[in-house]
Amino acid sequence: MPAPLEAQILEIAQNARAASLALATVPTDAKNAALHELARLLETHSDALLAANARDLAAATENGLTHAQIDRLTLTTDRLAKLAQSVREVAALPDPVGELLDETTRPNGLHLRRVRVPIGVIAIVYEARPNVTIDCAILCLKSGNAAILRGGKECFHTNTAFAALITRALATSGLPPAAAQLIPTTDRSALTHLLRLDALVHCIIPRGGESLIRFVSENSTIPVIKHYNGICFVTIDQAANLDMAEQIIVNAKTSRPGVCNAAEQLLVHRAIAETFLPRAAQALIKAANVELRCDPASAAILASANIPHTAATEADYRTEFLAQTLAIRIVDSLEDAIATINRDSSGHTETIVTADKAAAEKFLAAVDSAAVLWNASTRFSDGYEFGLGAEIGISTDRLHARGPMGLRELCTYKWIGTGTGQIRD
Amino acid sequence: MPAPLEAQILEIAQNARAASLALATVPTDAKNAALHELARLLETHSDALLAANARDLAAATENGLTHAQIDRLTLTTDRLAKLAQSVREVAALPDPVGELLDETTRPNGLHLRRVRVPIGVIAIVYEARPNVTIDCAILCLKSGNAAILRGGKECFHTNTAFAALITRALATSGLPPAAAQLIPTTDRSALTHLLRLDALVHCIIPRGGESLIRFVSENSTIPVIKHYNGICFVTIDQAANLDMAEQIIVNAKTSRPGVCNAAEQLLVHRAIAETFLPRAAQALIKAANVELRCDPASAAILASANIPHTAATEADYRTEFLAQTLAIRIVDSLEDAIATINRDSSGHTETIVTADKAAAEKFLAAVDSAAVLWNASTRFSDGYEFGLGAEIGISTDRLHARGPMGLRELCTYKWIGTGTGQIRD
Repeated sequence: MPAPLEAQILEIAQNARAASLALATVPTDAKNAALHELARLLETHSDALLAANARDLAAATENGLTHAQIDRLTLTTDRLAKLAQSVREVAALPDPVGELLDETTRPNGLHLRRVRVPIGVIAIVYEARPNVTIDCAILCLKSGNAAILRGGKECFHTNTAFAALITRALATSGLPPAAAQLIPTTDRSALTHLLRLDALVHCIIPRGGESLIRFVSENSTIPVIKHYNGICFVTIDQAANLDMAEQIIVNAKTSRPGVCNAAEQLLVHRAIAETFLPRAAQALIKAANVELRCDPASAAILASANIPHTAATEADYRTEFLAQTLAIRIVDSLEDAIATINRDSSGHTETIVTADKAAAEKFLAAVDSAAVLWNASTRFSDGYEFGLGAEIGISTDRLHARGPMGLRELCTYKWIGTGTGQIRD
Repeated sequence: MPAPLEAQILEIAQNARAASLALATVPTDAKNAALHELARLLETHSDALLAANARDLAAATENGLTHAQIDRLTLTTDRLAKLAQSVREVAALPDPVGELLDETTRPNGLHLRRVRVPIGVIAIVYEARPNVTIDCAILCLKSGNAAILRGGKECFHTNTAFAALITRALATSGLPPAAAQLIPTTDRSALTHLLRLDALVHCIIPRGGESLIRFVSENSTIPVIKHYNGICFVTIDQAANLDMAEQIIVNAKTSRPGVCNAAEQLLVHRAIAETFLPRAAQALIKAANVELRCDPASAAILASANIPHTAATEADYRTEFLAQTLAIRIVDSLEDAIATINRDSSGHTETIVTADKAAAEKFLAAVDSAAVLWNASTRFSDGYEFGLGAEIGISTDRLHARGPMGLRELCTYKWIGTGTGQIRD
């Protein structure tokens, strides 16, 4: 007989599977009605949500979380209003389910279509930030997937309050309440049980730190779409417009250093390093007092110009700083830059600044990352900026979805064949 | 210090990764030249291949393999000629690499394209049938992926001989020889080491029995695309043309019972069961002496008609017989059929026979399988019949590829953005 917790997780997964089969053929209007109802509930139940959040914040203070961590946990009336707005925006997006991907008629007359359908049951495992509960639930609902949500313990009361409103919005709109379920415990073994239910759960998306992602990836028999870190490179080619190059590295590094599409690594072609590096360094220091961690060649240039910098360690070249820190290297050639990126980057997003079209095309073809950009900031690499309308994360995996994941990437497809009695020889 | 075998597997993976980066931007002509050279070598080196195969066959006889197993292992001059022909057919297929999936220009002027690119390094783990070594190598090569091949011990000498020719064809054509490598040992721990190299290997495709697939899936930190079994259902609706229904169930069950798209399960609507079942049963017995395993309702009908049958067990309803055996159930309604399939099938391929368009459309929408067919045999569900030109297998997973996998399904995509100096607010 399974232990009570194991049985509870199994029941959640079974209910999710049943809900997903119903949800797969629900009309768009019914899904949108549930989303609008949820948006309304978020506004009309703000007192209850803020009270639940206050319990999490009290525990956070008691447990000595940092000011930044507590800020991320905190709900406000303003944040709730923005969250309700984001729910309405997802309702306004086109429904990906039922889209025709391609069709063909075979020589024997069999007519074949590939049609976008929901994946089925998606489990999302995340940490901190209570808005993730709503974000994931609404994106899964709109794409016709049943969601199993496993939030972090720091947000448990807030997540529980959100989940109650989601359940209510689903029920009010005539949709299966099990279409979005929060795991009602923060016990780690609940996660371990969940990760083995590959007959019922079709995909796991871990969103959080590297150790969470690694735990999920090593313990899951369910396919995982990993959202690892972004060690994003900006490459300044010898043929770069240096004004543009300066603006791009300053924007890529300093505009929001804590996100995965911020630049962490700068490669500068040797031919323009003496001209470019001092001005770029000064601009980075002026913009955000960026700490520059330099290889010996770039250090020598900055030293001659009396610009503050430190010596990079080997580890710095493969680090996601998530801070106003930048590792800098001089490269001898475009090929050197490409090889360096393909060895040291996390495959998230890289950009090259150059006026040389042939160099750019070589870079765009040879760099093996989810997003490769030419004369644009790495900061554009996200679902909203790429026009997906919404984003559940940025996949650093290659299978199924690569880079920003929107509603379409939460779907799979099926083959639909229509015949007139065809049999095979 | 890693053990020698572990170090050897690591080196194979590192060489594969380096080869994949080179292969990703190789022109189509160069890949096709290597394929044509391989086809030529298969023909000119048939003596060496048959000699290697003879060693495997001698061991197979000594180890008491069945006649059918030995037949599957056996190479002949004719089979080699067909293999060479299949290599030339893959050379003639369009190159999926570089295909434009979609493009858009954002309001800020950033031009975005999604372009098909190789996945990178693909490991394929398979059993028996030596032609799989060639099939997998050529499909990976054409799609720009480096392949790591791990064959079964029964074919070790044949696989080694094939691998030598593949290496030679690559080198002769100026491509990296590490683009396709056979693991040169059948030691099980080599596989265990390989399955942990997620930093170098991007995808594992296990092709073989359920225990192999489960072993890979449970031990791999690399994403797995599973090719599980096919428990395919044929549903005869109350509005079926009974002549067509009889032809389809006979074809789906008997034309090649050992393959995954053969029918294993028959559902018959109660309203036509008394008319349809006796004639279908007689046709199945006449065609291939099919053993009919019946639920009580279908058994009663066949008993009245004096048609041989046996009682089905619960397990029969979820069994891939891969033999001239069919489980039969009566269903009360279309909804009953859909629920039965979504509970008991393996999600591979299901078909409905009906003249009722509304019933068919409901079935096609609600049945949650990779391929759903209307008035056609389940036997059409493969890469050649679906027009993919070639097939590395049939995925029963939902992520990345669902159903038949051809060259496109061996690719991922990347985002390519072209700007004029865009920075983000």
